[in-house]
Amino acid sequence: MDPFTSESVKNMDEMCTVQFLPHQKSVTVANGTSVIRAAMAAGVHINASCGGQGSCGRCRIQITSGNVEGGVSDRIEPEEIEKGFRLACLAKIVGDVTVQVPIESEVDGAIFSKATAPRQSAVIKQFDFETIKEKGYFIPPVEKIYLELPPPDSQDRLPDATRLVSYLNVSYNERHVALDMSVIRKLPAILRANDFKVTVTLARPVRESAKSRVIHIEGGDTTDINQAIAVDIGTTTVYGQLIDLNTGDVLAEKGQFNAQISYGEDVISRIVFAEKGDGLEVLHQKVVDTINEVIGKIIKRAKADKDKISAITLAGNTTMTQLFLKVDPSYIRRAPYVPAATLYPPVPARELGINLGEHVTALVYPAVSSYVGGDIVAGVMGSGMYQDEALTLFMDIGTNAEIVIGNKEWMACAACSAGPALEGGGIKFGMRAAKGAIEDFSIDRVTYEPMLLTIGDAKPRGICGSGLIIAAAELFESGVINNQGKFDRELNTPRIRKHNDIWEYVLVWAKETQIERDIALTEIDLENMIRAKGAIYSGCVTLMEEVGLTIDDLDRIILAGGFGSYIDLEKAMTIGLLPEIDLDRVTFMGNASLLGARISALTNRIRRDVVRVTRMMTNFELSDTPSFMDHYVAALFLPHTDLNRFPKVMRKLAGRRSDKPV
Amino acid sequence: MDPFTSESVKNMDEMCTVQFLPHQKSVTVANGTSVIRAAMAAGVHINASCGGQGSCGRCRIQITSGNVEGGVSDRIEPEEIEKGFRLACLAKIVGDVTVQVPIESEVDGAIFSKATAPRQSAVIKQFDFETIKEKGYFIPPVEKIYLELPPPDSQDRLPDATRLVSYLNVSYNERHVALDMSVIRKLPAILRANDFKVTVTLARPVRESAKSRVIHIEGGDTTDINQAIAVDIGTTTVYGQLIDLNTGDVLAEKGQFNAQISYGEDVISRIVFAEKGDGLEVLHQKVVDTINEVIGKIIKRAKADKDKISAITLAGNTTMTQLFLKVDPSYIRRAPYVPAATLYPPVPARELGINLGEHVTALVYPAVSSYVGGDIVAGVMGSGMYQDEALTLFMDIGTNAEIVIGNKEWMACAACSAGPALEGGGIKFGMRAAKGAIEDFSIDRVTYEPMLLTIGDAKPRGICGSGLIIAAAELFESGVINNQGKFDRELNTPRIRKHNDIWEYVLVWAKETQIERDIALTEIDLENMIRAKGAIYSGCVTLMEEVGLTIDDLDRIILAGGFGSYIDLEKAMTIGLLPEIDLDRVTFMGNASLLGARISALTNRIRRDVVRVTRMMTNFELSDTPSFMDHYVAALFLPHTDLNRFPKVMRKLAGRRSDKPV
Repeated sequence: MDPFTSESVKNMDEMCTVQFLPHQKSVTVANGTSVIRAAMAAGVHINASCGGQGSCGRCRIQITSGNVEGGVSDRIEPEEIEKGFRLACLAKIVGDVTVQVPIESEVDGAIFSKATAPRQSAVIKQFDFETIKEKGYFIPPVEKIYLELPPPDSQDRLPDATRLVSYLNVSYNERHVALDMSVIRKLPAILRANDFKVTVTLARPVRESAKSRVIHIEGGDTTDINQAIAVDIGTTTVYGQLIDLNTGDVLAEKGQFNAQISYGEDVISRIVFAEKGDGLEVLHQKVVDTINEVIGKIIKRAKADKDKISAITLAGNTTMTQLFLKVDPSYIRRAPYVPAATLYPPVPARELGINLGEHVTALVYPAVSSYVGGDIVAGVMGSGMYQDEALTLFMDIGTNAEIVIGNKEWMACAACSAGPALEGGGIKFGMRAAKGAIEDFSIDRVTYEPMLLTIGDAKPRGICGSGLIIAAAELFESGVINNQGKFDRELNTPRIRKHNDIWEYVLVWAKETQIERDIALTEIDLENMIRAKGAIYSGCVTLMEEVGLTIDDLDRIILAGGFGSYIDLEKAMTIGLLPEIDLDRVTFMGNASLLGARISALTNRIRRDVVRVTRMMTNFELSDTPSFMDHYVAALFLPHTDLNRFPKVMRKLAGRRSDKPV
Repeated sequence: MDPFTSESVKNMDEMCTVQFLPHQKSVTVANGTSVIRAAMAAGVHINASCGGQGSCGRCRIQITSGNVEGGVSDRIEPEEIEKGFRLACLAKIVGDVTVQVPIESEVDGAIFSKATAPRQSAVIKQFDFETIKEKGYFIPPVEKIYLELPPPDSQDRLPDATRLVSYLNVSYNERHVALDMSVIRKLPAILRANDFKVTVTLARPVRESAKSRVIHIEGGDTTDINQAIAVDIGTTTVYGQLIDLNTGDVLAEKGQFNAQISYGEDVISRIVFAEKGDGLEVLHQKVVDTINEVIGKIIKRAKADKDKISAITLAGNTTMTQLFLKVDPSYIRRAPYVPAATLYPPVPARELGINLGEHVTALVYPAVSSYVGGDIVAGVMGSGMYQDEALTLFMDIGTNAEIVIGNKEWMACAACSAGPALEGGGIKFGMRAAKGAIEDFSIDRVTYEPMLLTIGDAKPRGICGSGLIIAAAELFESGVINNQGKFDRELNTPRIRKHNDIWEYVLVWAKETQIERDIALTEIDLENMIRAKGAIYSGCVTLMEEVGLTIDDLDRIILAGGFGSYIDLEKAMTIGLLPEIDLDRVTFMGNASLLGARISALTNRIRRDVVRVTRMMTNFELSDTPSFMDHYVAALFLPHTDLNRFPKVMRKLAGRRSDKPV
């Protein structure tokens, strides 16, 4: 799976129903899904550890009704193939089908009821341009108008600029219009080359009393093409979208690693680099280069024209924003952690080095504080939570997890230093969500043999953050680890072992990996993961407490960020990363920062509201909040010291094999 | 005399009284003035044609009381020197003195009464900053404020920018302030390097509802230095001033030839050049280079610091403005003569190539039409005529003469294509007002011998525009030419002759010139001059008529432009260039364009008014006004066909020798 393609771009048109026997579980999946992924989605365990390459040959299943495509392997005898046997990892669903999971790949039929739950990703909240229009929130920030001006003659000697402005005034009731210098420069030639028939691009002011600016002029009628670029400047990845301002549609989308990454993986190391010599200039140039590459690619992909793009909006965390704008970020990392600014004026895109027309202004999302940046504000704006009664927890989980709690009346926010564990950092075999990363996992409740899926169905190379959460939850639910993340030393399986003095669970044996080493999950890995989830959870609890509420008061959760899209909700609640809440009250926004950038490219309503919203967002420094440390310590258990906060997990654990401390 | 030093900079402190005998005329002149200049100012004729180098030796005078400095020459015998004889051109006035003009240098004492009148330059109208302040018109466009901000700590984590804006809000009641990107970039370092004690420069908006912008920040208290640059972009010369925004004083001033001049002397040839290849880019660069040189020099002269300059305002004619702003001027010279724009947005000075700080915005005066440009609007604003009841004629005389008539209720304007005669163009020995140009002239009413003064008291090289007006008037008053500018062929003097079939008056014989040729004024020269003055005068008459008035309704005249400063008013009325009006109702503004630029650098009041004023200024195209041609033909006489319009001239001519047609 391309990590840079968002969920929303997938073709979800053709869905198929897959029935698993003898489990009696069925699942609806997209045409083309592998049988093993369908099984995982249904909560059906099939031993499989090679990452879906057909090399381990353990995932034999039998098709008893309907058909699949592929799945034939020399690991299966020809006569068995005749009978419908296939390898689940190689067989693709192409229609409704019934799949028999052979009893030899399960140890005990009675375990079915204890098998892993079906996967519960959050509902994708799609942004709807029509709704914005219907609600009257649509104030196009950039508008094109086609004009047929009367040419001058000896009776009418209006200057070109006055002619244009007067016509807009008389014919379109545009009372306050000014022309940009670049338009004045083009005006005489373009009017005369086009018989005084031209299309002007008007940039609308955010403040209603201010002037509209004519920022661009083109010959003839070009009103059908009006486009903007939205950009999420991520520490790791820069995402861009080309947006049709007439329809709100995304015409193309592309992500690319932030070229700053060679100067440090996280914001702190980037700040350190920026402080030395021409470091700030270098990092500024690198991110601008990346943005230009992203723009180049989406324009190419959509067969668009760079010169016809009217606007660019960008969102990023405070450090990324300051580096992009070439503003010294030094004091972000130094107590008392003060950013240079949280509101940024519009800047000509060209001045920043952005490769777009000279008429294009870069609008950058405002931030709240050093660690609650424009990406979070963009997410809040894109989610609409600031207009809603519902008490919402908005979370963007990454190296830092940012939390916003509130509704249309008030908002509190904080950043939790979760550490990199949830992104695969500080985990022995941790890796980014790239090809070969273990992204899903289940464990046989009797043999403790794993079933695992990798990104791209490649031989495993390591485990990514979302895989880690699932693995930890499965190990915990199956009693392989206790509530402190320690292995049950008495279990009879070679996969649990003490290696170099550290207890671990072998996820994949060396021969089935790309890296030719056993891939294992260690107690230290689990400790890091628990600290990360503990920081996030206790951040939420502390923030709620600061505003006089508890977690139970939450009406809904919005998960933002690339990471959130792959989280299995139930597993995340099992380990205590997310508070327990009805799954249907959790929504997933995907790249909320990008969505916010897109929506503010589409309507000035967002730009009018955003300053008020940032003022409304009270920032809490968790390190200054005495109760935070208590909450944190209490959260360093699976799922939590206080199991009453997690009643579902408590019920699930009731049937568990062991929960004794080591 | 340095043509680039305005009248106002001269030291007028020490004045001396000079008594001329036997004429019984006295004059007050500045210490250091030559005796011959004092004589000319007093209307005392002394034969002298070598330009004041002592070479002709004809200007012998005797000091009978008081003392002069210099004037000794080998043309005077030692015993005569003992008796107080000196050469008037070499002797400097250093105190009150009585000067006897020897009878041999006059032919007939009886002619004294017919001698030339004393010189009548217009009164210099000085711009007064204090008056502006008293009238409440002072709205500083750029203001410095010194701030001592509280540093951030764990209880106060306001971002640097918010800290600054909040402090301005709370302590200075600044409700709407935004920070420029460049300030945000400097903010973190400058605050911390200066213990949070900084001076900010605020740019005030023209529209009261708009935001003030913090455009600059400096460490410590720098409020004592707040400066701006004012520039007049002339077709020939670019003038610049360094202005103290705290006091309104001009700290330094400098003029320099516009480097565009090598691409054409007048606006039309510049436009033609701009239309070819990269001509526009070249001319833009040339004028920017000139402006940068001027800025460099005034900054050096005032020992100022380029980086401490807060603003620059500029004014120029429409073509100069468009070339400066790199706007195609092609259609200015093509019917129906439409400029690209008359209002220009503020542009960052750096973007235009102006060598000032990145925080400096260039404000360019708006124009009215293709031939009534920002220089004229600046003059109108600087003169205050738009606030006045008095019906004023504002004239800026150059190659084109621009005329504005009106008061605070209405204004009409037009440009007259006068041709270059009044600037020395198309005149056989015409030249710019540079060293060696004959600038003043009188003629002996009996011998027809000349007395002439040159710029810089150098040997004559030619005659400049103001000299031409005086010479023509003197020749006319003395009956050497008739009212059509034709010479009296019967006068007995070798100076009037037919040369190459054209009648002329020899101003200087070859041996006394720099160019070693006889310098003469021809009938063709006079014809060109009459056409020029006729165009201007008839322009005024036509414009008055178009608004239902006559020249007699005028309350006052304001003369603008470098040329106007050297005009002898009475002579200008004698030839019919200016309408006859009491001399004390004529004021001279000097470089009105520069003055307008300066005043708008000092108060936003001007910038608030100027758009309204340009809208109020109704432009008339004289070529479209049928009556113009009739008025023009009637004005092709000295002073005019209708002598009743010039009663003073009529009285003067009563005693004239001859007025018969040739």
